[in-house]
Amino acid sequence: MIRFCNQCGKTVEYRIPEGESLPRAVCGGCGYIQYENPRLILGAVAEWEGRLLLCRRAIEPRAGLWTLPAGFMENGESSLDAALRETREEARAELLEARLFALMDVPGVNQVHVFYRARLADGRHAPGEESLETMLAAEAEIPWSALAFRTTRRCLELYLEDRRRGVFQTHQITLDGRPCAA
Amino acid sequence: MIRFCNQCGKTVEYRIPEGESLPRAVCGGCGYIQYENPRLILGAVAEWEGRLLLCRRAIEPRAGLWTLPAGFMENGESSLDAALRETREEARAELLEARLFALMDVPGVNQVHVFYRARLADGRHAPGEESLETMLAAEAEIPWSALAFRTTRRCLELYLEDRRRGVFQTHQITLDGRPCAA
Repeated sequence: MIRFCNQCGKTVEYRIPEGESLPRAVCGGCGYIQYENPRLILGAVAEWEGRLLLCRRAIEPRAGLWTLPAGFMENGESSLDAALRETREEARAELLEARLFALMDVPGVNQVHVFYRARLADGRHAPGEESLETMLAAEAEIPWSALAFRTTRRCLELYLEDRRRGVFQTHQITLDGRPCAA
Repeated sequence: MIRFCNQCGKTVEYRIPEGESLPRAVCGGCGYIQYENPRLILGAVAEWEGRLLLCRRAIEPRAGLWTLPAGFMENGESSLDAALRETREEARAELLEARLFALMDVPGVNQVHVFYRARLADGRHAPGEESLETMLAAEAEIPWSALAFRTTRRCLELYLEDRRRGVFQTHQITLDGRPCAA
């Protein structure tokens, strides 16, 4: 909930501006409208000799659980830039041949998660500041009962299904925003 | 540029918070951080009997020029919800069998444009409040010299190339943020 105008500091009210159909945070002083929109989370499924790169989270939410390298996309970068940066920051790993793999809507938390698939440049990986450890997991080693997010789980499932069939697709699915139950 | 905290109304300063690597708008009073992230634009390429649905813009930017139905994704909706809503609002048209078609990064303007491809439910279309007119354009009728945005042009080009080959893919490209020159 927005309470004050971030341009002039006066109080805002939620009302439907002329020509629009949804309530917005409109400044009572200068009239500036603060829009609130879904945020993009960018990540990667990275493979090396048949194994997939996972990170164990050092930070909340879901600290201690496993995830794919991913995080908020920043202004001024492309979605691929963001996926490469997050992989570098969280797993100290470099990616090659990245392809768009999945767009996952999570409307319950106002997020869209986008994953690229790629191969690791040289097999090297190490925990960054936001990770406790990193691993290259064979399919049988994936810690399904200790995954951080539903999008992590679905992304891994889709990747393994595509790999088994020998044809990678670009997926679009919609998930609710609850944390991974398993 | 953010000047005031939208939670407590005090002034903010741009600095790198502990544990982060980029400058953020941090409140000098309550410490709240206002993050600024790329926004999602959702749209559709809709076909009816071989023709594609276009809208002539009634509003700025690029009023008077032609575009695909598209607009800002809202909190609480999925990307597909947003594409269907924008098509309804701008072209009074309903879509069926929508599939993810293109993700276009436009880092110069901090946007990601996502297009679905679909068929029109019944061939009906009419200008909504933000459109001057709508049309179903055969390939030879597309007003290439009067298109509003580069993403519009690239999306139409990719769609027509895929249709000619008889195989639709899901595309990812990066564009600069300049308006369509042609």
